[in-house]
Amino acid sequence: MLKEAVYHRPKGNFAYAYDENTLQIRLRTKKDDVNKVVLLWGDPFTWEQIEDGTWQWKIEENVVMTKLNSTSLFDYWVGEIKPEYKRVKYGFELHDNQEKIIYTEKGFFEEKKEVSEFNSSFFTFPFLNEEDVFHAPEWVANTVWYQIFPERFANGNKANDPEGTLEWGITEPTPTSFFGGDLEGIIQKIDHLVKLGINGIYLTPIFKAYSNHKYDTIDYMEIDPQFGDKETFKRLVEVCHKNGIKVMLDAVFNHSGYYFPQFQDVLEKGEKSDYKDWFYIKDFPIRKEPKPNYHTFAFEPFMPKLNTAHPEVREYLLEVGRYWVREFDIDGWRLDVANEVSHEFWREFRKEVKAIKPDCYILGEIWHDAMPWLQGDQFDAVMNYPYTNAAIQLFAENKIGMNEFLDQTAEALIRYPQNVTEVAFNLLGSHDTPRIATICGENYSKVKQLFAFLLSSPGTPCIYYGDEIGITGGMDPGCRKCMAWNEEEQDFDLLQFITKLIQLRHTNPAFGNNGEIQFIDSKLDCVMYTKSYKNEKLLFIFNPTDKMVTLPVPSEYKFSSLNQQVINDTNINLAAHGVEILSINQ
Amino acid sequence: MLKEAVYHRPKGNFAYAYDENTLQIRLRTKKDDVNKVVLLWGDPFTWEQIEDGTWQWKIEENVVMTKLNSTSLFDYWVGEIKPEYKRVKYGFELHDNQEKIIYTEKGFFEEKKEVSEFNSSFFTFPFLNEEDVFHAPEWVANTVWYQIFPERFANGNKANDPEGTLEWGITEPTPTSFFGGDLEGIIQKIDHLVKLGINGIYLTPIFKAYSNHKYDTIDYMEIDPQFGDKETFKRLVEVCHKNGIKVMLDAVFNHSGYYFPQFQDVLEKGEKSDYKDWFYIKDFPIRKEPKPNYHTFAFEPFMPKLNTAHPEVREYLLEVGRYWVREFDIDGWRLDVANEVSHEFWREFRKEVKAIKPDCYILGEIWHDAMPWLQGDQFDAVMNYPYTNAAIQLFAENKIGMNEFLDQTAEALIRYPQNVTEVAFNLLGSHDTPRIATICGENYSKVKQLFAFLLSSPGTPCIYYGDEIGITGGMDPGCRKCMAWNEEEQDFDLLQFITKLIQLRHTNPAFGNNGEIQFIDSKLDCVMYTKSYKNEKLLFIFNPTDKMVTLPVPSEYKFSSLNQQVINDTNINLAAHGVEILSINQ
Repeated sequence: MLKEAVYHRPKGNFAYAYDENTLQIRLRTKKDDVNKVVLLWGDPFTWEQIEDGTWQWKIEENVVMTKLNSTSLFDYWVGEIKPEYKRVKYGFELHDNQEKIIYTEKGFFEEKKEVSEFNSSFFTFPFLNEEDVFHAPEWVANTVWYQIFPERFANGNKANDPEGTLEWGITEPTPTSFFGGDLEGIIQKIDHLVKLGINGIYLTPIFKAYSNHKYDTIDYMEIDPQFGDKETFKRLVEVCHKNGIKVMLDAVFNHSGYYFPQFQDVLEKGEKSDYKDWFYIKDFPIRKEPKPNYHTFAFEPFMPKLNTAHPEVREYLLEVGRYWVREFDIDGWRLDVANEVSHEFWREFRKEVKAIKPDCYILGEIWHDAMPWLQGDQFDAVMNYPYTNAAIQLFAENKIGMNEFLDQTAEALIRYPQNVTEVAFNLLGSHDTPRIATICGENYSKVKQLFAFLLSSPGTPCIYYGDEIGITGGMDPGCRKCMAWNEEEQDFDLLQFITKLIQLRHTNPAFGNNGEIQFIDSKLDCVMYTKSYKNEKLLFIFNPTDKMVTLPVPSEYKFSSLNQQVINDTNINLAAHGVEILSINQ
Repeated sequence: MLKEAVYHRPKGNFAYAYDENTLQIRLRTKKDDVNKVVLLWGDPFTWEQIEDGTWQWKIEENVVMTKLNSTSLFDYWVGEIKPEYKRVKYGFELHDNQEKIIYTEKGFFEEKKEVSEFNSSFFTFPFLNEEDVFHAPEWVANTVWYQIFPERFANGNKANDPEGTLEWGITEPTPTSFFGGDLEGIIQKIDHLVKLGINGIYLTPIFKAYSNHKYDTIDYMEIDPQFGDKETFKRLVEVCHKNGIKVMLDAVFNHSGYYFPQFQDVLEKGEKSDYKDWFYIKDFPIRKEPKPNYHTFAFEPFMPKLNTAHPEVREYLLEVGRYWVREFDIDGWRLDVANEVSHEFWREFRKEVKAIKPDCYILGEIWHDAMPWLQGDQFDAVMNYPYTNAAIQLFAENKIGMNEFLDQTAEALIRYPQNVTEVAFNLLGSHDTPRIATICGENYSKVKQLFAFLLSSPGTPCIYYGDEIGITGGMDPGCRKCMAWNEEEQDFDLLQFITKLIQLRHTNPAFGNNGEIQFIDSKLDCVMYTKSYKNEKLLFIFNPTDKMVTLPVPSEYKFSSLNQQVINDTNINLAAHGVEILSINQ
């Protein structure tokens, strides 16, 4: 048994409360090295007298752990327990063909330990306090999101177009072009979202700012006049809520825009400014070249980093967080560059926002492993780019092989507790990446595969506006083209396909978040996974190759969910870059 | 290279801010498997154009990592960096004799990666926000603590003796005996502490309670009348402060005592009590047998668990935390059964207490791996029982071998960030364990070895009252005997030895917390480690065997810190269970 591969550490993603009664305990071992793992556990205060009269901690239950997923290096195991007294002491019994080893906080032991050592060696989960349980709002797990870049979605009110607004879609966007998209446009196009099956929209920033993307905030308390006014925004929220759609806004608390009046005041008055401590200014006078002498986002002098440790800044930004929830009843905050702001600030932000609306969703922009932000005290989710990354590399780009796909996807699923993964914000692209159709080389079979993968994955999927009709575009500004509203410019086949997938997700519990995902290491040319819920089971098959693949249909699967037809053949022919979803129910 | 053994995950003890400018990054590899590790890092937003014209993230610096410590399974490496812009992207380059592998968040790669993959694979520490840095009060690292069980330290005022008080030390204590120890007694005996070199006292609970140990609080706002009154306590704090001694109180927020009026109210009025939600009562009527139908400490019906999620309970306990700091200027809180109370509560507790006195020390009673409580937002330290455990097993009990000692001790040191380890509360025993002299079978050479180990270790050492004069006693109540004040009952030799060690700790930076500890895997019969600070270096040698051992003296060590004499011999004879401390400076 390879002891160096065995890993467990309490809290984080290896031992956590799934809900107020349930603990999930995980263990990592070397791939194919261990054939059984038993979770040994009991109440930490239950003792039994053994032969020599001493009192020994009592293992009350042995739970055989199940293999959750594997990568090429590791197997991951999970066991679930519901301790009556909400506290446990536990260890692991690892079996292979030769030996049986106990693994504890104090390491491994093969033989009987002396009692005092036995009593003190095991891991503990000291108490399952309800306050510490990770809880995302209940509605999130069943949400299909749609991301809107307001300047490019729809122009509903010509009166608020900025000077120099171009005709809708007349040309490719540049970093500085304006096309007149606004909030009224979203209201007018709400039917498109309803038909698609969307029940949450995420708007990139709408607050007063200089640029077309509005990530350079001037006033966090005002709607940008190019987008409309507060009355219009209120109406947008109402229309959305009436249609069962949640509304999430985007806030940039890491930095302000250059024209934020407080920063302008510092530029003007220097050290004498009342706002000099609102930012991280190393020395005066302020310099922008060669590198700014104040902290910024990246090295961007036009985005000065806000000092969220300063009481006035903190109160200002917390009030922003509260204001839009309190006054406009928004349902979520997406937080830009969230990992560069202090944990301390986010803990307070969560408290303040949830005090007003307990089921408000808090989503952080973090592109990396985000466990430190997902422990229940900060975010409900992060933008889970790593999860879809391998799928894009395999299906769209053919850059990696099946093994690397399985490795990376399994690692992304195991990286967080299950209740965190269920609300992870999964996406194939955003205003910060090339369009998925472009990454796929405009091969729409590949695009369909990726949407089938995205929409059947654990987590909450988000569709970037226009991806559902096949819009193309490279890295920004390319990916920020105007939405195409003429039907002849829309890929109707793709739209229908995605609409169908969303419908399946909403109606079929195994398809959505209730379904437990299990990848099949088939050695065939196709990616396969099952999703199971109760006696429902779906089999997803993706052909990532350039040739048709013929596969045997497992006998229990009799129905194609995509084509709505019974499968009578014993084989299935999957076209190059094709996807099939088989079900045992009709 | 054994990839399964390689471990790193940002934040926690593998990547953390040591201070507001410094990051320490650690890596684990299989023992003796890798001969060099290089930390590759740069600012996340610094790019360079490579041959094909694409922009690639730029590695700005290569830092050769140093081997921190080893166990029989693993080597641990550390690298320290001071990023100008307070943010880093990083990875590791691992070398053995055959190959060179890069390790990143996305796993291992051996060859050049495609640029977009290269750019997104590395680990990040997104921003070093000062608010998130773990900061214990500065005075703590230089403190030598002394734990007092007030009922048994000294009786300074006969007038407050409870009924049935026994003559001081006349008999062994029972679970219910009273000997009349009090706060006045501590004041009168302050000289003993000053002479010993103590600069912090930790008092087990002094609030009104039923038992002699006072862990069953009746009133958190009152001093137990058997111990004195608030005026006396105020005087005690003043006397301590005048003598450079900090004062830490013990609070039990996990549970109250049975006679806590709020619990009595629930017992009396049942469901109609205003306090029914102050506890976790599963159903009414309340039962104590066979097991309580309310959450308790362990299964102890007399210690009902407090519902710290309830706003009134929370406010009540937070006010306790504030009150004694605000009104009596205490310097620290030791928190009983701290790991069973919610993280959420402790975060608030820290804020409230530190708002009044920023350098108040917060110490949690946790016997296990406590990383989740030591991230800067909750505790400054925990009672670090695991650290001394292996030393006790080797030196006192001869239960384990040298390898297991080195394994466990190294694991305990690596378990936390360095700034956490520097203030860990290390102890050889407390009111909850048998006395160290008894564990040593009253072999005082062994006791001396353990004190030399404790007092030279990273962290802040605590001496349990009376251990310095050799008091014996088994598990409680045995370990709670009356302090012996007659000099003929005190082990003067031991007292002198410990006084000498404390003096060395206070005066010699390498001996104390500034000294970097490095264990020597000597293959000899002795435990050896060096402690280094600037050009000062100490060599600690412990003979754990029952025979004299003769060892060569490394040529650079020329002075015995214990005997204050120059060593001229080329060998040193270390008696059975002896300890020597050699220095290269005089």
